Amino acid sequence: MRSDARANRAAIVDAARTLFSGRGVDVPLSAVAEAAGIGIATLYRNFPTRDDLIRAVVEDIAGCFQAVEREYLARIEEDPEQGWHDFVHALAAIRPGTIIPALAEKFGGTGAPDYVAPLREGVLATQQTLLARAKKAGLVRDDVSAKNFQLGIASITRPLSEQPEADCDTHTAWLIDVYLRGLRP
Amino acid sequence: MRSDARANRAAIVDAARTLFSGRGVDVPLSAVAEAAGIGIATLYRNFPTRDDLIRAVVEDIAGCFQAVEREYLARIEEDPEQGWHDFVHALAAIRPGTIIPALAEKFGGTGAPDYVAPLREGVLATQQTLLARAKKAGLVRDDVSAKNFQLGIASITRPLSEQPEADCDTHTAWLIDVYLRGLRP
Repeated sequence: MRSDARANRAAIVDAARTLFSGRGVDVPLSAVAEAAGIGIATLYRNFPTRDDLIRAVVEDIAGCFQAVEREYLARIEEDPEQGWHDFVHALAAIRPGTIIPALAEKFGGTGAPDYVAPLREGVLATQQTLLARAKKAGLVRDDVSAKNFQLGIASITRPLSEQPEADCDTHTAWLIDVYLRGLRP
Repeated sequence: MRSDARANRAAIVDAARTLFSGRGVDVPLSAVAEAAGIGIATLYRNFPTRDDLIRAVVEDIAGCFQAVEREYLARIEEDPEQGWHDFVHALAAIRPGTIIPALAEKFGGTGAPDYVAPLREGVLATQQTLLARAKKAGLVRDDVSAKNFQLGIASITRPLSEQPEADCDTHTAWLIDVYLRGLRP
């Protein structure tokens, strides 16, 4: 793929993730193309169907999670307390709470397509490893499950309004710190 | 007001609060009437305009908050730790995170109408008293502001999906307990 083609594709996926988060996955694809600064024909050349675009967004988010997890697998060994703290803030910065509700609504009725489960399991397996490391370091209570932990991050990072206030990030960072303290033994 | 008229009015406000939370304050009033089990004419007799109905919903929520606060002003004196714990769970049970985003969207552009500020201040003043009492009892760190505290409750009680899973309440209760621990000094 040529670099401008790659840039177009990435711009479409970014725009789709933002618009899906704010307005749901049924947002007009013309709005996605416009937000990405490309023509609708280019969008359809990259993603022949809406489901292709949804899949690319899901893979993009899973990729973000996996990149963060890989980075902190090493860092948590060097300095468990700082590593765990920074890992949870980095996870929250992906703001899973903005896109997960839109995907849950889409997949809620019919069930998620087959490609979702392996991605989710890959993300959760590494998260499980990091959580276990944090428990071993006395940073998280033993009875905290990976599912609870992950739902907590999603709840905290779901914006209260589709037009978030300017201090939304400050509030989320505050709440993540409260969350980190609350998870301790 | 006769008792069946009162019951009708309460049913309309309840239905409006539920539908506003799930679908926004611009939901068709015919849907509100249907959910309340009354005719549209009865709805308009009680609430001539949509803004009248929105106001009734806001007053209803403020009333729920104030009732919980009044109850726990006494209980927190008897047993600060249990009283504070139960107060925060009772606040969360009102699920401010379901309706606040819909109202924020409505009032975001034009600003909230005049009747909102005194209601909000009344609710926050008593909450401030309870928070101060919890700080005095060593249950909450001194640097936790009433605004942070309240935004935290709203974030935690915002459902991740409009069709919440069956274990949504269990997750929220878990997260409230983590929150309570995280607020401690």
